[in-house]
Formats: sequence, C-alpha cells, structure tokens
Amino acid sequence: MIEHSLALVGFGNVGQAFARLLMRKQAELEKDFGLTFKVTGIATGRHGMAIDPAGINLPRALEIVRKGGNLDELSKVPKPNSMLDFIRSCPANVLFENTPVNHETGQPAVDHLRTALECGMHAVTANKGPVVHAYRELTDLAHSKGLRFMHESTVMDGAPIFSLLRAALPGAELKGFHGILNSCTNLLLELMEQGNSFDEAVRYAQSIGIAETDPSADIDGWDAAIKVAALATVVMGIPLKPQQVERQGIRDITPQMIEEARRAGERWKLVCRARLENGNIVASVRPQRVKPDSPLYSINGTSSYVQFELDVLPGLGIVESDPGPETTAYGLLADWLNIIRGV
Amino acid sequence: MIEHSLALVGFGNVGQAFARLLMRKQAELEKDFGLTFKVTGIATGRHGMAIDPAGINLPRALEIVRKGGNLDELSKVPKPNSMLDFIRSCPANVLFENTPVNHETGQPAVDHLRTALECGMHAVTANKGPVVHAYRELTDLAHSKGLRFMHESTVMDGAPIFSLLRAALPGAELKGFHGILNSCTNLLLELMEQGNSFDEAVRYAQSIGIAETDPSADIDGWDAAIKVAALATVVMGIPLKPQQVERQGIRDITPQMIEEARRAGERWKLVCRARLENGNIVASVRPQRVKPDSPLYSINGTSSYVQFELDVLPGLGIVESDPGPETTAYGLLADWLNIIRGV
Repeated sequence: MIEHSLALVGFGNVGQAFARLLMRKQAELEKDFGLTFKVTGIATGRHGMAIDPAGINLPRALEIVRKGGNLDELSKVPKPNSMLDFIRSCPANVLFENTPVNHETGQPAVDHLRTALECGMHAVTANKGPVVHAYRELTDLAHSKGLRFMHESTVMDGAPIFSLLRAALPGAELKGFHGILNSCTNLLLELMEQGNSFDEAVRYAQSIGIAETDPSADIDGWDAAIKVAALATVVMGIPLKPQQVERQGIRDITPQMIEEARRAGERWKLVCRARLENGNIVASVRPQRVKPDSPLYSINGTSSYVQFELDVLPGLGIVESDPGPETTAYGLLADWLNIIRGV
Repeated sequence: MIEHSLALVGFGNVGQAFARLLMRKQAELEKDFGLTFKVTGIATGRHGMAIDPAGINLPRALEIVRKGGNLDELSKVPKPNSMLDFIRSCPANVLFENTPVNHETGQPAVDHLRTALECGMHAVTANKGPVVHAYRELTDLAHSKGLRFMHESTVMDGAPIFSLLRAALPGAELKGFHGILNSCTNLLLELMEQGNSFDEAVRYAQSIGIAETDPSADIDGWDAAIKVAALATVVMGIPLKPQQVERQGIRDITPQMIEEARRAGERWKLVCRARLENGNIVASVRPQRVKPDSPLYSINGTSSYVQFELDVLPGLGIVESDPGPETTAYGLLADWLNIIRGV
C-alpha cells in the first residue's frame, strides 16, 4: 500500500473543508481504494506555513487557523521564504491549490501549479483563473512529466462536469452548452422576485456571504464569463478568454421587468451560452426571460445548471442543488482519486 | 489496429438506429479510438438471421428489413436453429442484445446475454429485464471470464447514468435518488394539462408511438418500477425487484385534479423514489404534485430526470431532453467504447 503525501496551498473555506473531508473519508479511502495519505504541508496567506514530512496533525491545524493562530508552530523544517519556496520544499505527490486568485492573470495560482508540476507533483485546483489563463501550458507540462492537471471544482463546484465529459461520453461530439453558472446573480434575481430592490438583494446576499464586498465581478457577469471560458477551453478544446464572451450583467434588471416576467409566467435568469459555429466558439452571458418548460426555470438560490448539446444526445443537463464548501472540497477529492484511478 | 467483430441480436428501432450510428461514426472511431469494426451477425425475430465472418453490408441489411425482407439471404453460413445457436455460431467480440423482453422473467434476453458471455463475448443490452432479474449473475459471469456486462441504455436511454456513477463520482456515498423515469406517463399528464381526457391522451400517445397498444405497463407504473429496481440494484448495490417498489400509476388522476394543481401553480408528475434506510432500500413510484422550484416541474414530454443524493453532493440531477432511438443507440455505443477503454 502506497502512502500518498498531500500539500495544501491556500487554507480558507475550501481548503479547510477539504481537510475535514479528508479526515471524514480516511477509513473509507483505505477500505475502498486501498490508499493511505498524510498531509505533509499546509501554506496559508495569513496564518503561516507548516511542513512535516511525517504528516501534519489536521485537527490541530484546523484549530490553530480557527483561533487565528499561526501554522508555523507545526512545522518541522525552517520556514520557506515564499509560497514557491514552500512548494519546492514540501515532500508531496499532489498539490491542492486554493489561494485567492487574480482573475485577469490567473496569478499566483498559475505559478503555484507550474512549480508543483515542475517538482513532480500532480496539480489540482478549485481556481478558475489557471484554467482560463494557462490550461494548455499546465496540461502539456503535466503530460510531459507523466502527471495530471485537474480542476473539477472550477465550474459548478464539485459536480462532476469535467469528468463526465472526459470519462462518460466517449464518441460523442459536443456542439455547445448553456446554463446558469453564477450562484450570486441567481440568488439576487430570486430575491428581487420576492420583492426586494436590487440594492436590498445585494445587501442580503452580502450578509450571508454569497456576494463579495465588491460584488461587481458577479453582477456584471465576469464570474459567469470566466466559467464559460473555462468550460469552452477544456470541453470544447478551443481556448476562449473571458473578454471574448459577449457579456451583459444584471444591473439593468428592474423590479418592473421582474414583475412583467412574473405576470407572463416567466423568470429572469443570467444565462450563459457557448456554441461552435464554423469552428469558432460564439459565447455569451446575458439576462434572459425563461419559461417554465426550461430546466433553467426551476434553478433556485445558489443552485446551478448546465445543459450540453451533443450530436448523440440533444440535451443532457446537470443540476447542482444547494452547494456548499464541502461540495467544492469533494471536487478536489474526486480529482485526486481520478488521478490515482487513471480516469 | 484490432478489428472488432460485433453481433446484433434484435434489429428493431433500437438495433437499426445502432447500425446507422455505427455507420455514421465509423471514420471518427478509427480516428479518435484507433478502432475498426465489422458486424459479423444480425439476428431478428421476424426478418431472419445472417452471419458473415467477413462483415455484413449494413446499408443492405437495413434496406432488407425496411422492405420487410429476410436477412437469411446475406448469410454465409448454414442457418442456425435458434437464437442461442446463432449466438454460439457468430464469430464476435461483443454482443448487443435488443430483443423484445418479458419483464417478469427478463427472458429471453438473460439467456442471450449469458450465452454470449459463455462464448467469450462482452454483453451489452438496452433491455432492463436482465438488469433486474440477473444483474449479479451476469456481472459475476462476465468478471470470471475477463469480460463486461453493460447496460447504459436501460435507464434514461443513452444519458450516461451508470457510467457517471461508475466513473465520475469516486469516494461519494449514494443515499438515494428520485426523478421522472417513465416518458409515456409524463407525456400523458402533459396532454391532460392541455385539456385532453385520459383516454384522449392515451390515444394520441399511441398514435405517435409513445404508448403501447396495451399501455398498462406504463400507466400502472410498472415500467417506472422496473427502472427504479434496475437503478437501485446497480448503483446502490442492493438487489431490488420491481414488486418491492411501492407502486401507484396515473389511472386515478382526473382532469379535476390536474386543474386543481394548475390553479395552485403545480403539476402532477409520476415520481420515482428510492432511499437507503437502515441498510434497506425503500422505493416507490407514485403521482405527486410538484412545485415550480423543483427540477421535476420543467420536465416535459418524453424528457426524463433523475436526482442523486450523495453524502458529498446534496443534489446532483441529470436531465435528458427529447430522447429518440438514436439516444438509446448511443448508450450501446458508449458501453462498447467504455469496454474498450476499460472505464
């Protein structure tokens, strides 16, 4: 039985949920997959870094971070000078990258993942940035080293979108997709349907942690455009930048428009679309009224939906209901297990 | 490059759609999977049988059957005495089983599949009967011979339900599922919403080939119960017979009930459910009113839906829109490619 060594870069909500999921699944992974593991390194932005080749005590690490402490105290090696130094020093087979990312550059996640691959680790991330900005580079680098670059959690959290298309639809030709990929705007539109003004809806979404302090990336459709670009780049095999996605957010949706749609039995949704036309991808994010006969109609709150159009399946839709940090954490776990299984 | 030899047992709508799909995908399969194939045998109930070790001319076979002729004329060997004799005589690597099946016994499909496996062929079927009545036996037999028994098309046509759970959700624990799995009743309920009486709806569904001459298997919930049993048996790993599914069909749904639901903004749907409770599966098929916030609400016509409840994903739903015979045929193709890829 091989013992796998895992390094975690970024230890916020997702990283911590992943650590808890690893602990909860430990016995099951040993029983069902014959695998044992230890977390040999955890690096954070504000709570220090720890490397322990014998394995870090995860409950202890979670407690330290929860109490606002510093992980340095768990480290058995001299403190690395930087995140990249940490990655180079940490004895691990797989790196899980979940640090805050700049969506215009994909950094510093791209550098973290590249360094991990150069050091001989598989690279797994929940960050969309590296997929949009460096998918080809990281995939080719991984391939050249007999490693994998995996990113299931980047679109629709842990719902198995990428592995579905990679593993379960052989011989099918993908022509396009559409769906609801941004949770925040979906919730805001629903709050407006319940009678809130746009500003009230934003304030409520902020209060429950769904909208950011500056919610413009969601509201103006950027987050959705990045997801469209990531999906198109990977599953349609044609690199697409978020800037190439025709984009319109939900700022101009008024309570009057919401009410008019309701009277017609329809709902406003921020709809993502991509379609192959003459070898090019035509992609858009824009508010649309949807009718009750569309699966988009019943996607509520922070749930999401994507429907693929394939030559052999006219409409194959995936619904993800009620996601949370553990859902995203599961995508990281699935990526790791799929690496081990060679899927 | 290996040339694969395929045998088709049953050559009705699904078998013919599969033959057309094979022809359409031939160049792509060679290019993308490096595989070439020939169909060495086709056996039908009413249009004879042909075996040709060099490969049957598929367009010719399709034309003969379309014109009501007999495939015997294409055969290069003495006519087999029976379907089982055909299977034993046909030089093939994979058998595709699509004959009419008795749902109470799974026969003669079970015998066809067992014989194919005993003769060293992989066995693929679109028939639910063998999954419900002989899943363990056929899977164990296949395993003992280094072969596979595959059945993607038995539930939701070619939508990748079984391969999703087999290949894309490692380490996830399935707790239950619910959905709409019978197309005929879903269409009938919709026709009643449009103002048709139950009998008018049945007659229309019969006229377009969705309802059988005797539609009771659909209307009384048997087809749905068989699908629940097949899904539970395979994906939850606990054998379940259709008789163990609590079952209520749609005969008692009146236009008044449909209208009452409509006034409340709801719709009647025939809902399938299965859930693990204390190690046992509790399963049911029964009409239920669903609200607009349920993905079931927007499942129209012959589309279908299943939502899995997993420990790590609270709700993962799959929508299949607008299926046809080619959708089912794709499930057979996917099974074959997954056998070759070892997925």
